[in-house]
Amino acid sequence: MKTKIAFPGNGQKRIVIEKVSPNLENGLYPLKAIQGDSIPINADIIIDGNDLVSARILYKSPSQTKWQTASLIDMENNRWSGWLHFHEIGYYEFKIEAWIDHAKTWLSDTQIKIKNHITLDVELSQGISYLQKIAKLASKELEKEITSWLQILHNKDNYQAKIALLSSYPFEECILTNPIVYNATQSFSQGIYIDRPKAQFSAWYTCFPRSTSKIAGQHGTFKDVEALLPRLQEFGFDTLHFPPIHPIGTTNRKGKNNAETASSSDPGVPNAIGSNLGGHESIHPELGSISDFKKLIEVCKKRNIDVAIDLAIQCSPDHPWVKSHPEWFTIRPDGSIKPAEMPPQVFNDIYPLNFECADWQNLWLEIRNIVLQWAEWGIRAICVDNPHTKSFHFWKWLIAEVHANYPDMIWLSKAFTKPKVKHQLSKIGFTQSITYFTWRNSAKELRSYLEELTQTEVKDYLRPNFFPSTPDILPFGLQTNQTEPYLTRLFLAATLSSNYGVYGPAYELMYHEANFPKEEFKNAEKYEIKHWNWEERNKITHTYTLINRIRKENTALQLTNNLTFCETSHEEVLAYVKVAENGNRILAIANIGHESEVQVDITLPLSLLLKGEFDIFKAHNLFTGERAYWQGEHQTIHIDSRMYPFLLFRIED
Amino acid sequence: MKTKIAFPGNGQKRIVIEKVSPNLENGLYPLKAIQGDSIPINADIIIDGNDLVSARILYKSPSQTKWQTASLIDMENNRWSGWLHFHEIGYYEFKIEAWIDHAKTWLSDTQIKIKNHITLDVELSQGISYLQKIAKLASKELEKEITSWLQILHNKDNYQAKIALLSSYPFEECILTNPIVYNATQSFSQGIYIDRPKAQFSAWYTCFPRSTSKIAGQHGTFKDVEALLPRLQEFGFDTLHFPPIHPIGTTNRKGKNNAETASSSDPGVPNAIGSNLGGHESIHPELGSISDFKKLIEVCKKRNIDVAIDLAIQCSPDHPWVKSHPEWFTIRPDGSIKPAEMPPQVFNDIYPLNFECADWQNLWLEIRNIVLQWAEWGIRAICVDNPHTKSFHFWKWLIAEVHANYPDMIWLSKAFTKPKVKHQLSKIGFTQSITYFTWRNSAKELRSYLEELTQTEVKDYLRPNFFPSTPDILPFGLQTNQTEPYLTRLFLAATLSSNYGVYGPAYELMYHEANFPKEEFKNAEKYEIKHWNWEERNKITHTYTLINRIRKENTALQLTNNLTFCETSHEEVLAYVKVAENGNRILAIANIGHESEVQVDITLPLSLLLKGEFDIFKAHNLFTGERAYWQGEHQTIHIDSRMYPFLLFRIED
Repeated sequence: MKTKIAFPGNGQKRIVIEKVSPNLENGLYPLKAIQGDSIPINADIIIDGNDLVSARILYKSPSQTKWQTASLIDMENNRWSGWLHFHEIGYYEFKIEAWIDHAKTWLSDTQIKIKNHITLDVELSQGISYLQKIAKLASKELEKEITSWLQILHNKDNYQAKIALLSSYPFEECILTNPIVYNATQSFSQGIYIDRPKAQFSAWYTCFPRSTSKIAGQHGTFKDVEALLPRLQEFGFDTLHFPPIHPIGTTNRKGKNNAETASSSDPGVPNAIGSNLGGHESIHPELGSISDFKKLIEVCKKRNIDVAIDLAIQCSPDHPWVKSHPEWFTIRPDGSIKPAEMPPQVFNDIYPLNFECADWQNLWLEIRNIVLQWAEWGIRAICVDNPHTKSFHFWKWLIAEVHANYPDMIWLSKAFTKPKVKHQLSKIGFTQSITYFTWRNSAKELRSYLEELTQTEVKDYLRPNFFPSTPDILPFGLQTNQTEPYLTRLFLAATLSSNYGVYGPAYELMYHEANFPKEEFKNAEKYEIKHWNWEERNKITHTYTLINRIRKENTALQLTNNLTFCETSHEEVLAYVKVAENGNRILAIANIGHESEVQVDITLPLSLLLKGEFDIFKAHNLFTGERAYWQGEHQTIHIDSRMYPFLLFRIED
Repeated sequence: MKTKIAFPGNGQKRIVIEKVSPNLENGLYPLKAIQGDSIPINADIIIDGNDLVSARILYKSPSQTKWQTASLIDMENNRWSGWLHFHEIGYYEFKIEAWIDHAKTWLSDTQIKIKNHITLDVELSQGISYLQKIAKLASKELEKEITSWLQILHNKDNYQAKIALLSSYPFEECILTNPIVYNATQSFSQGIYIDRPKAQFSAWYTCFPRSTSKIAGQHGTFKDVEALLPRLQEFGFDTLHFPPIHPIGTTNRKGKNNAETASSSDPGVPNAIGSNLGGHESIHPELGSISDFKKLIEVCKKRNIDVAIDLAIQCSPDHPWVKSHPEWFTIRPDGSIKPAEMPPQVFNDIYPLNFECADWQNLWLEIRNIVLQWAEWGIRAICVDNPHTKSFHFWKWLIAEVHANYPDMIWLSKAFTKPKVKHQLSKIGFTQSITYFTWRNSAKELRSYLEELTQTEVKDYLRPNFFPSTPDILPFGLQTNQTEPYLTRLFLAATLSSNYGVYGPAYELMYHEANFPKEEFKNAEKYEIKHWNWEERNKITHTYTLINRIRKENTALQLTNNLTFCETSHEEVLAYVKVAENGNRILAIANIGHESEVQVDITLPLSLLLKGEFDIFKAHNLFTGERAYWQGEHQTIHIDSRMYPFLLFRIED
């Protein structure tokens, strides 16, 4: 009879490691954490028989090439636990290693025998054999100690000295801390990408640099942007985000309001990238030079503001690649390049790249080189436009490749697409993701969506970034000249999610001309240069300043997954609590409905707020500075939306 | 700049396949099903962009060496669904394959253009190119049809004929059913072990053949066992299980009640396997010859009874391997073999094998050969004694290897050990597993344990087999001369689990002498030959007969995971429902407490029982034959435990 089933590689291994936690698809995708985080590591370690097991965490930080060890302790029911601390930014890996510790088993058995007055015999020879093995790898000092122990054990007389030695603490410590590791089992390796803190806590401000000139009709420049930085800083934003800043194509250029033909004065759509002036590696000359842009990045950095730019991987028919690398596009049987299509619509100003092309490796390298060049300019945040129309494998590779050189790069996925496609992009490496928040309006919708983001497996890989509107999306709720919805959506974005952003100054100016019934702007900025009032100060800008300051002062608002909703008596009032490890406790209440005044009963999660049923505590209104004394889980709250359609409290002792 | 991150093997692949269901640790362990089962297969198929995807199930049955295909249909939210049907016994494998279907995308886009009266141009050349590719792999008939279509498409005139062709059903069918598969993505491969039906539905009867003689003091034989078969069949058991039947060692033999020394008349413990008469491949001569045993197996098979024997991988000091293969044991520094130990206890009559020994492959092969030899005798069910003290990798290999030759072999894991160790054994291939049922007594304990077995991931790999007692375990609840606990535990075992067994005739004779406060027998059968009354008929044997007949007649009782508990008004009354796909519906109610009469309100899960709130339906008492008419979810039930401590109804229309 022949064997039909192959032997395992090493049949002497007796340990199985399972349910390593945390993990994402058993190590297929990296987890996410932030520099300074500590994470509990757990695993089931399962073994046949009664021998004792030892186990440890093996891990590599970005700067280490060899595996380091961290301890893992046997808890109960075959579950082992330890911790990893992340000090560096970049890609960490860990795995679990476990082995049958025969020396530990022998020590334990022998000590039981000693306690039961069983005379030791062959056990002593066994001990000598273990000590000899340990000595081979031991420090000089320990080797010396072991030599002295071996003399005791080899001595034919003095049985009592041997017993005393085997019962002694130094001997036990030597056996337990110098494991003889062989036939060890290792788990899969799980990656954890450690980002800089801004990956988790950021306030974005999107604007078109070409609309920043103070002179009407004039094309804005990076120098004009510089002049706006004090305003941005007054409002408290920390990431300044631009749509594409590259030369814009002229062939089939779109006019105002997406008109099929452009007049000679139309500036074109920034997303129709590439002209005879260059492609993604170049800058639209009317915005300034590369050194102007580098200077802007430098000046922003001094104010702790990151400049983020769009990566839109698509070309105008005038992009240099169309001539230099037509093989990177989809070539039709007649030799022409296929434009973007969504039949029956055709978008003749855009040529998509073909990620299935035979020359994919050079295409990937070229895009990598562009991003690395941006990074050399000083860019450390990239907003990818429509990443869901390019291949997942490509993003996974590109992000890892750029991170290997610039581990502090933040990648925001701007993918308004199906949930699982959006989730996949986060799994393969995007630092943050745009979400459906923009279209979640009722309290019920918001609660259900936030619970999905923060309480399901999605929390392990997707860091949301909440935008109330974008240059492409003006939701119905903001197609109004009423201030309240703008205040509410801003408040929700900034307090529900630790990452959020606005499309300004359209937002603070409540620019709301819409192509109703579509959720998009009329006279949208992407087709024309706007002349905004950059001096405006109003209730919305005041709220920017206040909410961003409060976010910086309250660590509970610097996390997203620490969210707990409260029951309320009014179906259009959303109340939620965020608590940080340092004891910072925030209660947010928003009136989402149309009533200008509401009275609402809220049930507080007292134990989460570290309060007992009879405790009296302070509710500090962070917008007005008022402090009220509360007691018990039931609170009746009055919201006057004419003041503010929300309330924000810090719970204090 | 050099690339630091390796390119993926094929960067042109654009599809990701995730959350394949069912799966066990992403294909690491096989799932379990039964011959004749159909199982729904699902997967998330995720792709960038808007191209259309096609996907299919690839599977291999045990008799096939090439992958077969089964269809998979796009449901919603990127979830695809299909079915697999299992006709053969043995190891199946399946995986999911998906690819971007450019021809399907082209057809869909083109049809939209036709509907929108857009004149086709390059689309027609594209169609010709797809048809030419399809023709290469097509049947003669289809190739002929394609040739005629190509003539239409190549004709410079008659545009309308081209449009009519592209809109026709045969053309669409040709494109959709002849996929051009390339750059396809495949998921991991998931195994499913398909067992014969008895793996899922069986009633075991464990007895010691040496205690089957009708003459007191005489060693029982296989011929004596044959004489008992009519009785076994009257009771309705279908699997006759024996402790080890091999030669018993004499060195350090244990006497009655585990005495350290045996008298010359003591027969020894069957688990101390091996003497100068042979080891695991031999049969204890007093039981009979190999041909006697083969004859017994044959006679049993005619009565649809399987003979199951114990596989206890351990040796007496007299086992032939001790001399022929001392390297398979643990050799101590002084050259001696280490006996079984649980310090401070030493078991000098047992030598455990060392699965870490250097010669592990030959040890594995030797055990494999023994099991194959048993299979040649006709054995198709093996009860492994203490599998948790041998290596997991070994069992995984052994079971797969034996299944490759005898796919209908049933492996029962008799592992009374930690939960995760027990679960691991089921994951790596054991057909059935002994459970903690033996020690779950209260209604609350039973409900919680059964919910763990049937509603958590455990249900995917562990098929429970419920034994109220075993030769090694006499639980406190059965240390009594009262009939009710014996009836209750039998009823619970036989109705909660589709696989169950009893240790007879100790069970029906209520043999309850115990080594109190231990949960074990006094004068246990494993240390001595018993003279039982094999003629006994009583309320317990009557219940065997009835319950086994009812199980055979009601398919709902032939499954375990179809269990739903009902709320009851009495904390010591357990009520549960089992429903089968064919409409068979069973309601079981057991009085687990000590009151001889109870009145209890039970809430029925009406929708599960296919009944509406106002429907009148029959509750058919399967023990008395009485039929009552019931209506509504609330029923008051009277249990007189002096009659039976349980009630068993079939819900009928």
